[in-house]
Amino acid sequence: MISIPPLDSVAAEQTRLRLDSLAKVPGSLGRLETLAIRLAAMTGDPQPLFPNKEIIVFAGDHDIALEGVSATGQEITAGQVRNFVRGGGTINAFARNAGASVKVVDVAVKENITDLPGLINRKIINAVHDFSKGSAMTREQAEQSIAIGIEMARDAASRGINLLAAGEMGIANTSPSSAIASVVLQLPVAAVTGIGSGIDLETVRKKCELIEQGITLNQPDPNDPIDLLAKVGGAEIGAMAGLMLGGASLRIPVVVDGFIAAAAAAIAVLINPEVAHYLVGSHVSVEPGHQMLMQYIGVEPFFDFGLRLGEGTGAALMFPIIDASVRILRELILFKDMEF
Amino acid sequence: MISIPPLDSVAAEQTRLRLDSLAKVPGSLGRLETLAIRLAAMTGDPQPLFPNKEIIVFAGDHDIALEGVSATGQEITAGQVRNFVRGGGTINAFARNAGASVKVVDVAVKENITDLPGLINRKIINAVHDFSKGSAMTREQAEQSIAIGIEMARDAASRGINLLAAGEMGIANTSPSSAIASVVLQLPVAAVTGIGSGIDLETVRKKCELIEQGITLNQPDPNDPIDLLAKVGGAEIGAMAGLMLGGASLRIPVVVDGFIAAAAAAIAVLINPEVAHYLVGSHVSVEPGHQMLMQYIGVEPFFDFGLRLGEGTGAALMFPIIDASVRILRELILFKDMEF
Repeated sequence: MISIPPLDSVAAEQTRLRLDSLAKVPGSLGRLETLAIRLAAMTGDPQPLFPNKEIIVFAGDHDIALEGVSATGQEITAGQVRNFVRGGGTINAFARNAGASVKVVDVAVKENITDLPGLINRKIINAVHDFSKGSAMTREQAEQSIAIGIEMARDAASRGINLLAAGEMGIANTSPSSAIASVVLQLPVAAVTGIGSGIDLETVRKKCELIEQGITLNQPDPNDPIDLLAKVGGAEIGAMAGLMLGGASLRIPVVVDGFIAAAAAAIAVLINPEVAHYLVGSHVSVEPGHQMLMQYIGVEPFFDFGLRLGEGTGAALMFPIIDASVRILRELILFKDMEF
Repeated sequence: MISIPPLDSVAAEQTRLRLDSLAKVPGSLGRLETLAIRLAAMTGDPQPLFPNKEIIVFAGDHDIALEGVSATGQEITAGQVRNFVRGGGTINAFARNAGASVKVVDVAVKENITDLPGLINRKIINAVHDFSKGSAMTREQAEQSIAIGIEMARDAASRGINLLAAGEMGIANTSPSSAIASVVLQLPVAAVTGIGSGIDLETVRKKCELIEQGITLNQPDPNDPIDLLAKVGGAEIGAMAGLMLGGASLRIPVVVDGFIAAAAAAIAVLINPEVAHYLVGSHVSVEPGHQMLMQYIGVEPFFDFGLRLGEGTGAALMFPIIDASVRILRELILFKDMEF
């Protein structure tokens, strides 16, 4: 089990005291103040700064897509990966907006695109299996996916990255996320399954049935996150969980994005509950299971703009808010230094 | 009455079509897409960009503060104005975070600080009168405050500013804002009055009584926004309304910030309802009247971080979200150009 250091309560207390001594009404910045205190506790720095932000997008396919549970075809995964490495995707635009870098990692893309310039090749399998018919991955593959995420966090840290977000690209990956949510939250599949990227009600019903079938068939152990990830999950979900665990082990805050990231966070929390201390919420999506998973991991989202794109876009929108929350610690004068 | 041009429906339609042709799931960016379409309609540019953002902070005092309705003393207004022009306030930090400039305008600060370097002097009066005892301003002063806001919008436009926000500094200015909200919304004062910067319940009761007394005494005409502003408003509220009207007249979007800005927006809407087309929501504060005023003006806020600071801080946090919403129009490849 990966070791996660305890939060720095001394740094947190210093930040709390500083916030109350600044030239503003104490507490008037609401959740931005509690966020700044949490970031101090994570980093051990009472005045943290995050100049080097990165979104790591893990891409993987899911053969459950072949059942027609998704709004678009499987070829979109590889298409968007090509787009992302060239900088033409939404996540690239939002990352530039936040002054963040983007890395794209192939963990289970169906197509062979490993020679694509700029793509990080960690392919485990060419699409995980259709979990409605059997296990999505072997236990070894699931472990491998988590190890890749941990490796990526360590690599990012070695390059000076001090704020991370886990993004994803994988057609049909709301299906494994709903399966994970259903098992973890002990709720019916229908309670945690939505329209994904935009499917009609008939397809939602079919999607629910297939997920239910996959859970019944595979019998994932709710107390064994690797078993759960292997049987009804996906490689990019495992890698995202690994990035969260790896970030936390290095005291790097990791922003949790949408529904798929929340499912990954649930896996990470099952592996080591301490990881939650290093997670920062961002958006809450229209997927019904998202808010519930956020409650389960104990991380509050900050905004609801009706996003349902994935890629890490919600996290990228959170970055400037994080910057604002810590800027005040360095840039405001103290109340006692005000001139009257 | 200031003339406000109609929205550009052709630009809006071009933006809508472009959003649906980009390499992403149509509609998957939720409210950011409707925001981008609105911004196109406002500016007439189907791919608008906002490189030159500015927050104009209007500062004014309120002698109702002498009744003890506020958490802090009146001297804080001038103290924060000094702080803002030197760049040491929360609004300065958040503006830098968003790549925006800050201007500070004295419209009714009690102290004589007009020679402060960097301060724009448009002082109408040294604090508006205690409206619980009589009219806050004369009708002429109210008109003057609006004219100052319009002038500031025109000045900003002449300097190339293409996105504006109205901020404020004025101890006790939630009291006139509650008075305006009560009259405009035809709701009891208690329904739209909160703790402001942080007062106890006894003070809230006293604050409500004084506001009620001021409305009964002054009998502001709910159909005459200038009368309402003069009798129970404030100079910085008038100037903020003017900035919104001036911005709208020049097709410059204006971000509405907290409760005081929403009260100003209500005055602006009563002067010319077309102004609402050019307003963009940002945060919703803990003040109970805020959400209701936003509904009245027909502008939806985007987030709730529990802010209760004012200054324009909520608007400054909205700027990067606005940037993200329009960036996608220029930086994403088209779906048809994706490689499979």
